[in-house]
Amino acid sequence: MARHGQWTDEITRGRFVMETGEDFLLKGYSLPMSPRGRAAIIDPPPWHYGGDVLHLAFRADAKKMRELLPPPLMPGPDPQEGVLWFTEWISASDANPDLSFVNPERSQYKECIVMVSCQFQGVTGYYVPYIWVDNDFTLVRGLFQGFPKKLGDVYITRLHDLTPKVGGKKAGAKVKGICVSGAQRIVEGSMEFERQAQPSDVPPVKFYLMRHFPGIEDITKPDIHEIASSRVADPKVADVWVGKGEAKFHASEFEEVADLGAVTVTKAFYYSLGITITGGEVLHRF
Amino acid sequence: MARHGQWTDEITRGRFVMETGEDFLLKGYSLPMSPRGRAAIIDPPPWHYGGDVLHLAFRADAKKMRELLPPPLMPGPDPQEGVLWFTEWISASDANPDLSFVNPERSQYKECIVMVSCQFQGVTGYYVPYIWVDNDFTLVRGLFQGFPKKLGDVYITRLHDLTPKVGGKKAGAKVKGICVSGAQRIVEGSMEFERQAQPSDVPPVKFYLMRHFPGIEDITKPDIHEIASSRVADPKVADVWVGKGEAKFHASEFEEVADLGAVTVTKAFYYSLGITITGGEVLHRF
Amino acid sequence: MARHGQWTDEITRGRFVMETGEDFLLKGYSLPMSPRGRAAIIDPPPWHYGGDVLHLAFRADAKKMRELLPPPLMPGPDPQEGVLWFTEWISASDANPDLSFVNPERSQYKECIVMVSCQFQGVTGYYVPYIWVDNDFTLVRGLFQGFPKKLGDVYITRLHDLTPKVGGKKAGAKVKGICVSGAQRIVEGSMEFERQAQPSDVPPVKFYLMRHFPGIEDITKPDIHEIASSRVADPKVADVWVGKGEAKFHASEFEEVADLGAVTVTKAFYYSLGITITGGEVLHRF
Amino acid sequence: MARHGQWTDEITRGRFVMETGEDFLLKGYSLPMSPRGRAAIIDPPPWHYGGDVLHLAFRADAKKMRELLPPPLMPGPDPQEGVLWFTEWISASDANPDLSFVNPERSQYKECIVMVSCQFQGVTGYYVPYIWVDNDFTLVRGLFQGFPKKLGDVYITRLHDLTPKVGGKKAGAKVKGICVSGAQRIVEGSMEFERQAQPSDVPPVKFYLMRHFPGIEDITKPDIHEIASSRVADPKVADVWVGKGEAKFHASEFEEVADLGAVTVTKAFYYSLGITITGGEVLHRF
Repeated sequence: MARHGQWTDEITRGRFVMETGEDFLLKGYSLPMSPRGRAAIIDPPPWHYGGDVLHLAFRADAKKMRELLPPPLMPGPDPQEGVLWFTEWISASDANPDLSFVNPERSQYKECIVMVSCQFQGVTGYYVPYIWVDNDFTLVRGLFQGFPKKLGDVYITRLHDLTPKVGGKKAGAKVKGICVSGAQRIVEGSMEFERQAQPSDVPPVKFYLMRHFPGIEDITKPDIHEIASSRVADPKVADVWVGKGEAKFHASEFEEVADLGAVTVTKAFYYSLGITITGGEVLHRF
Repeated sequence: MARHGQWTDEITRGRFVMETGEDFLLKGYSLPMSPRGRAAIIDPPPWHYGGDVLHLAFRADAKKMRELLPPPLMPGPDPQEGVLWFTEWISASDANPDLSFVNPERSQYKECIVMVSCQFQGVTGYYVPYIWVDNDFTLVRGLFQGFPKKLGDVYITRLHDLTPKVGGKKAGAKVKGICVSGAQRIVEGSMEFERQAQPSDVPPVKFYLMRHFPGIEDITKPDIHEIASSRVADPKVADVWVGKGEAKFHASEFEEVADLGAVTVTKAFYYSLGITITGGEVLHRF
Repeated sequence: MARHGQWTDEITRGRFVMETGEDFLLKGYSLPMSPRGRAAIIDPPPWHYGGDVLHLAFRADAKKMRELLPPPLMPGPDPQEGVLWFTEWISASDANPDLSFVNPERSQYKECIVMVSCQFQGVTGYYVPYIWVDNDFTLVRGLFQGFPKKLGDVYITRLHDLTPKVGGKKAGAKVKGICVSGAQRIVEGSMEFERQAQPSDVPPVKFYLMRHFPGIEDITKPDIHEIASSRVADPKVADVWVGKGEAKFHASEFEEVADLGAVTVTKAFYYSLGITITGGEVLHRF
Repeated sequence: MARHGQWTDEITRGRFVMETGEDFLLKGYSLPMSPRGRAAIIDPPPWHYGGDVLHLAFRADAKKMRELLPPPLMPGPDPQEGVLWFTEWISASDANPDLSFVNPERSQYKECIVMVSCQFQGVTGYYVPYIWVDNDFTLVRGLFQGFPKKLGDVYITRLHDLTPKVGGKKAGAKVKGICVSGAQRIVEGSMEFERQAQPSDVPPVKFYLMRHFPGIEDITKPDIHEIASSRVADPKVADVWVGKGEAKFHASEFEEVADLGAVTVTKAFYYSLGITITGGEVLHRF
């Protein structure tokens, strides 16, 4: 079946001119496309993110970690290394820079990310086998990039200078992240703050991802099935704390993350992070 | 970039053999793929559905309705006709026939669907410009098919024979559906039961859909952008009531459904519906 | 501190005349009281309920069960007997008989109830040590009666005649209830249908409850602390199935229900139930 | 009915000794009482709070404001003055100081509070006619004090230094609060930051409240019906910004807050607040 027209539009709005010269009236970077282009579940990149990250570097069984990596990704320098993130994001886009004001509900979310150390053509990074988020726009935006997002309720301790008995960031402060999905607690991670550190102490995270979209006519032939990496601009790290941590994956009828077995947290960080994602690169098509 | 292997697997599980002969270890019809293939957010079709439908046929401004139709879909025989559904589904798949028992949370959802009468090569049906659901598996399954799903809280009156003052299905019974998304009430529809009717009285619904998945390298070039229709098997309609109805779309900063203006409900139905979706057909690629 | 006026109002609305003769303008059976009396979180009784009940009679350690009973309640004839209910209710009141139509969200809820067999002055019944619900109006209405409600997400299998692979009520059908609260799965109960039965086969349930409201000036002196029973009118049972069941209480940092240990389900029922609660009786004040 | 024993316990746990000398085995400041006293929905005071407050002082029709005040509270010095708060709290108690770590879900909540200026015996403060929160423990704790809480989804803009296009607190920053309850948007309030200010610039808030608990035997005779005030210790205000604001109450089938009509925001503040509530005082019993 041939394409009957030409996609001509500027970067933020999908305008399509048919071969007949008729305009394609529906606009939007994503579904739902609509006459004014306001209804789309997510705006086009660049996508901006700022938030606080509970970052737990862990070690798990090397064989179990290997099983989570799709070819052509290879295990990283330390095949046992993984990272668990609990994050709380405020996000924005160039197309709707005011979104966090107009509708806070459509700009905030929490997520729990499991990462496995890997490398591709000698460049190390992390593959994301599992990730849960608590809002729809980020779920779909994630799928576009290759984050295998599901909905989960993510709870993260918040420190506050003025809450008696809790207090703000300081040595001895403790934070925990909990992820519940499908009516079960799935992931837990925690950290006790020890001391402040430098942004350069935080291990950088490069994401390797699987983009996948099943076919509808023949379900054994996906329309998209490829390994990609995110294109990240302007990462900023601030207000870094290091400490000791713990992590636990809970058994579940459906989730397989607990197959990793017991894990040991080797380093724990809590910091503020700002990034912009401008798109991604396809590294491998199956 | 060439594909480096062969997709060989049986219908329900994605096993991939690399050119190197190495198995692709991750399984799943959808993301997240995992070693045992249990973690995927949704199983492969056939997808089974059974539930109760509040079906409101409405008329709206023909020009506004036309603006919601992507080419090559053309307006239906009555260009003013649309349908609003509020449904509560119990769903299942062949791959996990026990799912509604093992984890009810992953088999039930409610949705609100807006449809616009259309035709393609002389076959009439309905295009779905807007749809909201309240669970993640159906959101993602919908995207695969071309339903432009967002999350919404969907509330629907339930009748029950044993609730005093409410009662069961009978003449005079009243049901209402409400859809809230993005912190706003977006859609409302209601019906007052008048009399029982035959399954053949219910207008059949054939879905025309837009499948769309943005590219990640060049965001103006979608990886998928096409018009499809669902492949529906074994529709069963039962316990049909007809009556009079009302519908209202509420203004919102983001949703455009209220641009349809005031609508008039011409027919109202409430019935039980069972269907199986086995996949779809791509009708047009842009 | 003396009372400065007189409560004079009719049964459904709280109108208060001050000693000064000035009307107390705020109306409502419950907070929030408001000028028009529409804002109250719950209407006055009679409260009507209709829904479907998964009823699991279980046996647990007699000593553990005894520890859950406040005096003057005494263990029931079988001190090991308890009941677990998962229910889905449609509720209504005389004051707002149309509520389930006008706002379905304010008339539907699911709950998980744990009951311990007991007796008071020779009349057997069940004390409710723990209960979780998923909506606010029922939480507060429960507190008024003495149900110690917390919020929980309650998931219950729904059977539907038209869902392929699931189907409706029949021998072999299986339903499960799951209760999640405080980010943890707390209770699970399930049943496999064996055969239909008579309404008279269903063990009746009389509720014994603790009404408690802490004092605000001296927190060791509750304003209310008493044992009560519900006044239930017109119970109707229909569409009864019996079968075999299972139940499990999960450990939690906060909930103590799992202290009951392993329990054995002795009888499992699934049925429709309609009742009206018109108030209660105070049996004992501490 | 006489009380048959004596309440003897220390401040944090309810132990009751029967006349018979038998201990009352169930512990807890609130329901559900349990053998180990861990299950109660809320711990006893002191309750600690710290969080960020969007504080909008507004003026509304004096007559409409008056109608919201129960006797013996009298209108405040400016009978048109009200306050709208959107707050995000981290809370803690002496009994479970670690709660925000062990279970973040049970220590965080957001709320939307409407206040009406009033006075009692010459002491000015604010009566709270309406308030919505998004968690159960605070709903019940609120009822104990006289806050007429309902559940609502509360969304508040979060500023973050590292989110591009959003940024942190600075002149020109904009925040909005939205409250949705009963499937409707009910309250909206927003502020544009202009400049930093002193803690002493923030108007203090003293709460006047109605404690109410219906009777169960005769529903026209409440067990508790009184006017109280909160006992607040150690208020701390920090990081104050002032600016200009807007507020809007939306019409609803049930809520009456929109009966206030259009309101004008006279002053807008955003600040961090820490307080401890140690109980309350009953000012008037009806």
